[in-house]
Amino acid sequence: MDNKKSNHEIDVNKRDFFRKTAALSVTALAGTSLLSSNARADDPAIMHHVPWGQKWGDPVTKNRYGIPSAYEHNVTRRNTKLLASGNYRASIAVTPIHESMGIITPNGLFFSRSHGGVAHVDPNQYRLMIHGLVEKPIVLTLEQLKKYPSVTRTHFIECPANGGQEWRGPQFNSVQFAKGFMSSAEWTGVYIKTILEDLGLKPDARWMLAEGSDNSEMGRTVPVEKVLDDAMIVWGQNGEALRPEQGYPVRLLLPGWEGNLCVKWLKRLEFASEPWYCKEETSKYTALKPSGKAIQHFYANEVNSTVTSPSPEIPWTNLKEGDIVEIEGLAWSGMGTITGVDISFDGGNSYVPASLKGLVLPKSWTRWSYMYTIPKDFQINGKQIILASRAMDDAGYIQPTVDEETAIMGVESVYHRNGIETWEVTATGEVNHVQLRS
Amino acid sequence: MDNKKSNHEIDVNKRDFFRKTAALSVTALAGTSLLSSNARADDPAIMHHVPWGQKWGDPVTKNRYGIPSAYEHNVTRRNTKLLASGNYRASIAVTPIHESMGIITPNGLFFSRSHGGVAHVDPNQYRLMIHGLVEKPIVLTLEQLKKYPSVTRTHFIECPANGGQEWRGPQFNSVQFAKGFMSSAEWTGVYIKTILEDLGLKPDARWMLAEGSDNSEMGRTVPVEKVLDDAMIVWGQNGEALRPEQGYPVRLLLPGWEGNLCVKWLKRLEFASEPWYCKEETSKYTALKPSGKAIQHFYANEVNSTVTSPSPEIPWTNLKEGDIVEIEGLAWSGMGTITGVDISFDGGNSYVPASLKGLVLPKSWTRWSYMYTIPKDFQINGKQIILASRAMDDAGYIQPTVDEETAIMGVESVYHRNGIETWEVTATGEVNHVQLRS
Repeated sequence: MDNKKSNHEIDVNKRDFFRKTAALSVTALAGTSLLSSNARADDPAIMHHVPWGQKWGDPVTKNRYGIPSAYEHNVTRRNTKLLASGNYRASIAVTPIHESMGIITPNGLFFSRSHGGVAHVDPNQYRLMIHGLVEKPIVLTLEQLKKYPSVTRTHFIECPANGGQEWRGPQFNSVQFAKGFMSSAEWTGVYIKTILEDLGLKPDARWMLAEGSDNSEMGRTVPVEKVLDDAMIVWGQNGEALRPEQGYPVRLLLPGWEGNLCVKWLKRLEFASEPWYCKEETSKYTALKPSGKAIQHFYANEVNSTVTSPSPEIPWTNLKEGDIVEIEGLAWSGMGTITGVDISFDGGNSYVPASLKGLVLPKSWTRWSYMYTIPKDFQINGKQIILASRAMDDAGYIQPTVDEETAIMGVESVYHRNGIETWEVTATGEVNHVQLRS
Repeated sequence: MDNKKSNHEIDVNKRDFFRKTAALSVTALAGTSLLSSNARADDPAIMHHVPWGQKWGDPVTKNRYGIPSAYEHNVTRRNTKLLASGNYRASIAVTPIHESMGIITPNGLFFSRSHGGVAHVDPNQYRLMIHGLVEKPIVLTLEQLKKYPSVTRTHFIECPANGGQEWRGPQFNSVQFAKGFMSSAEWTGVYIKTILEDLGLKPDARWMLAEGSDNSEMGRTVPVEKVLDDAMIVWGQNGEALRPEQGYPVRLLLPGWEGNLCVKWLKRLEFASEPWYCKEETSKYTALKPSGKAIQHFYANEVNSTVTSPSPEIPWTNLKEGDIVEIEGLAWSGMGTITGVDISFDGGNSYVPASLKGLVLPKSWTRWSYMYTIPKDFQINGKQIILASRAMDDAGYIQPTVDEETAIMGVESVYHRNGIETWEVTATGEVNHVQLRS
């Protein structure tokens, strides 16, 4: 295996060529194939003795609302005292992104952050007030709100603190904890601009306050330009009502912008000529710079990516030299659409392009992959593999290195960290979250 | 309201024009607007007395795997003895499509049909055998199967009996029961053609047997052309493992083809030169014609559509003359991509085009809508509104009328019914499933 690097490309090209020429008859590839890592199981007889084939199963109506297999009990949101305040009520539960597939996070695994716990709102008592600098202020019931023409859009929501515990270096040897403060869903609701066609926005309206009805009365101010662009009031998530921890029955959705701006249990939108400077946009959710000054009005989650497999949770310990494996990851940008992802095996010194797979949508998770042939001892030119990914978006941005980012932002901000993460593969295929600093 | 019909278009055009010209300032529209049906709620004070704003909410970690709000307890799959055999074990539970949003059905609401109950498969004991006319027969563990490069695709699955209880006329005054034998999801798995690149398909292989590991050993035969086109072995549904009632850990997915062909709890694929003619493709899942002969090898679910709102479940009883309402529905085709949907208010005598909304993907649910102004007493020219929708696909097909379909198929087949359904709106806004016959 002297030509390991070029082998990657040869393998991929072979497969692409094969797909293009596949017709009714398919002939096994000579030489290296995926089968090399798919050895025949030693005992086909196991198939004839499985207990579930020998008795009637459960009635289909046992669960009118279905639940996962009991064997999947380990695929859950998780929390640790290292996250946010450590207070279990006010804290965060993060998504197992290493187990994610496609660009939909099931609602049961969607990450959750609250500032006063999860409110349980009675939809019959729910009201949404829209007032301030509008011609016709209004209080809407849920039924009235849902009469507006709806739209459905697939977008991620990301806490701006995603990865933000790690400005001084990795704290979590886990991709779920390091990068799982985000999830993605298909949202259904109404564009706020559609409602404003009815209510009439006054010319001096420049800011919108969004306020939650939970006990924290979470409040954030949004520039009216964003409101009139793609801001939505959403009641549907992945084809059903929002879950309580996502703001049931109604939350604000500002595609691509900080998750905390997407106020949950939404009760009030007020338009004004000045921003509010609420507690959660002054004492929190500002980015502290080395100068001691903080960046306010920092909204969009910038272009970012991560490797999800392999990861500390999904190591390569069962792979050996010559095995072909799919490296997978996610990329996302709150500024637009992902245009490409590069992958590095040497910690960011050199990169090769990965493939985007599946749907590529604006302000949405974009899945990427790279077919890779495992080298001897997981080493390239005598050095350990150190995986890194960097994404680009159609707004023209590319992920910075951690050094580049730290030079500007220092290490005191917990928000908007999108520097390139690195993941070391050991000689036995374990994967560790590491940080390379110059 | 003499010009009700043209009003629809004027309203829509106004709104489109408005959207194009919307800048920083938004002025209320004069005259008719959506607000006409959104009267101001009488007591804004309700917002200050809601109990959930006055105490700490639940910890975010209360549900590591989240569940819907208790207020949504009525949004479930349902079953009735009128469906299929009436045996609660062997029967079907259908999706509340009137509550659906977008093109994703949450896994908890995905319709389920089984032939021997829901099997609970241990993923560690799971094996998939692929043999017959292949160069290298194999038995794969789940881990080995998942090593193949994965793809993610959004497709509906539909039971060919969807609507098939109603060849003699409506049996269910319910869109859930009349049309809910289908759901849609984002599936993750591997193309079978990718596996066959490794195994090598012999030239005389023309058919593939798929067999389930449930106690019914559900078996169906698939032409190899479909296998090499887009057939998948899937383990992921909407970003997580399949649910048990969808075949956990692995099912076959034949995009656009009959749901029963998408064999669940998949244990064996065998390639051969002749079809198998299994029980479930001879005694069942064939379409009996008036001649007494049955159509075999009937696979693709043909172009179809339904109105979902209004519906018997979501009537217009709270609307009055002049209110603007969004009519919504679904369209789908197992032969390709939906190219258009028309809506009729007079039971199919005349049609106007509806709008496709959101993503339009091949062999996927496609959502459509039409903004409508409610006429006096829900009547047009002195006649009750009778809603109907008809869809077209890029394979060149258009939904037939029930008369056209019945003339060819008679009324004895329970499968592949895609005639245009009709829904009557009463003078008080109730909606009833009716069938107009010439």
